[in-house]
Amino acid sequence: MRATIIHAPGDIRLEDVPDPVIAHPTDAIIRLSATCVCGSDLWNYRGVNEITKPFAIGHEYAGVIEEVGSEVTSLRPGQFVVGSFIASDNTCDICRAGYQSGCEHMRPVRGAQAEYLRVPLADGTLVATPEPPDPDLVPDLLAASDVLGTGWFGATAAEVGPGKTVAVVGDGAVGLLAILAAKELGAERIIAMSRHESRTALARAFGATDVVAERGPDGVAAIKELTGGLGAHSVIEAVGTDESMTQAIDSTRAGGHVGFLGVAHGVEISGDKLFRRLVHLHGGPAPVRRFLPHLIELILDRKINPGKVFDLTLPLSEVAQGYAAMDSRQAVKTLLEP
Amino acid sequence: MRATIIHAPGDIRLEDVPDPVIAHPTDAIIRLSATCVCGSDLWNYRGVNEITKPFAIGHEYAGVIEEVGSEVTSLRPGQFVVGSFIASDNTCDICRAGYQSGCEHMRPVRGAQAEYLRVPLADGTLVATPEPPDPDLVPDLLAASDVLGTGWFGATAAEVGPGKTVAVVGDGAVGLLAILAAKELGAERIIAMSRHESRTALARAFGATDVVAERGPDGVAAIKELTGGLGAHSVIEAVGTDESMTQAIDSTRAGGHVGFLGVAHGVEISGDKLFRRLVHLHGGPAPVRRFLPHLIELILDRKINPGKVFDLTLPLSEVAQGYAAMDSRQAVKTLLEP
Repeated sequence: MRATIIHAPGDIRLEDVPDPVIAHPTDAIIRLSATCVCGSDLWNYRGVNEITKPFAIGHEYAGVIEEVGSEVTSLRPGQFVVGSFIASDNTCDICRAGYQSGCEHMRPVRGAQAEYLRVPLADGTLVATPEPPDPDLVPDLLAASDVLGTGWFGATAAEVGPGKTVAVVGDGAVGLLAILAAKELGAERIIAMSRHESRTALARAFGATDVVAERGPDGVAAIKELTGGLGAHSVIEAVGTDESMTQAIDSTRAGGHVGFLGVAHGVEISGDKLFRRLVHLHGGPAPVRRFLPHLIELILDRKINPGKVFDLTLPLSEVAQGYAAMDSRQAVKTLLEP
Repeated sequence: MRATIIHAPGDIRLEDVPDPVIAHPTDAIIRLSATCVCGSDLWNYRGVNEITKPFAIGHEYAGVIEEVGSEVTSLRPGQFVVGSFIASDNTCDICRAGYQSGCEHMRPVRGAQAEYLRVPLADGTLVATPEPPDPDLVPDLLAASDVLGTGWFGATAAEVGPGKTVAVVGDGAVGLLAILAAKELGAERIIAMSRHESRTALARAFGATDVVAERGPDGVAAIKELTGGLGAHSVIEAVGTDESMTQAIDSTRAGGHVGFLGVAHGVEISGDKLFRRLVHLHGGPAPVRRFLPHLIELILDRKINPGKVFDLTLPLSEVAQGYAAMDSRQAVKTLLEP
């Protein structure tokens, strides 16, 4: 089959590799209907994460089960499934508390920018749709695999709810879908921190009521001005830099909640500042599996349309162009058709 | 009157100063029944916090109202009151959300190691007992003013509740009373991280079910061993150093909660670590006012006995000895009788 291999920063190639096989009796093999490029893949593409040897990249996926291992009980070939980028047993204490991304037996899912994918711990990781979905819903279901589930986690971690003012730092796919999540969870006011016109339009389509273009201390001052000097009740951080984390913490009122989603790179949080600011801080790799059944239902009922974040669709053979378009911010998110 | 002035590290003096007077119409003047020395006072005493000029120290108090300003409506002279170390209006949005220590109009209360004290924003800061308390309850009520309220906040911030395993880092008065709070809030198992015999005994009296003497990575390993390899559901940090914060975060299971209470000194939290650990982090100056009515009720009903943390009682004139005893860890906490 063909799979995407990253060799070095900026060096993305589609290559012929052996088809994946059932390696453990709890595995499933999926024929991918769609996959995509993640903002976190760019950390590798840009050389921020060191690449010691070439590896098969990609972790977002939706597709049809081709084969299951002998211990898989809840899934069968032919089912359309969506799964998380972290495989989980969904039965341990941590999973049952809703933290499948911290599962005692968790395994990464890697190599999804390909034609076929092996998913470990299939019973605990994959969620099947009741029947094959309409083809136009595939991008929405693919979004649930990571960016929607991650944005939803951010909104949950930031304790978004009715009557609350929410600010979202970051206008990438995760930030935009955090806006959608905040809207669905009943936020009264949603402030998108964005300065890119096309992204701002999408932010408003997803439910943003206000847009703040300023960053850093000016951005914080703008949020304060919109919230009677207090700051937002809930702030979702979806970038992963020291600057964005500072902006998030400083934009939150005393007693408020910061949900952080950006994979942290060089972020140092001053304990003294956190002490004085009195905010709640929670984040990390999203337990997407917790939210998948609900998100899939919303999508199949056509109540949400998260697939709108895909503003570029390419055949898998053009995966390198897909990375380049996101790297240069010409595309918010690239969908790849195997 | 006589008040305690700190001049320099280690230089504590009881001096004659003018009696406090009503400076704002929302003030009250209290004749102190009891006051005490706080672990956070030691940051000054030990020279960790710079002392640029001598100041009146102390922020824990219980006593009888002597006089109220013209705008004070809910209190009258003769009432016995307990208040927080942060004065709050108790009416702003932040206060109504339970974060009186982040009140929009907050003011510090300072100079409580004295005979009389001026308390700003009296209506929003002080809580009166229905009638003058039995004298033996005064130490318990004094504890509610800070260390009990702070320990209670830590247990609340760490989401302590029935069925949960709680670990407490730090065996000072706040850590010990966090154990009492965890017990009252229904924790199933409470692990005290303590290596001092007399403090361990008090920890057990307050409800600790297990004691871990190890610190650092060994302490974390011991907590993991007691919790099936997962870590505690809730961890309360009551020291305020980088080491104690690390120990707290590393002792918490994925999805669990850290409540931190120690005034942070030199604490830097790695964003990457916090991301990977998936814990919740919340803390800061405790909104003691939120808890005071409930805590006072528990004390007057003789259901809790937080005053046990006072293992040294001295006349106010011996305040310098009171500091020295705590500095050398001969005393957990010194009560001063004006």
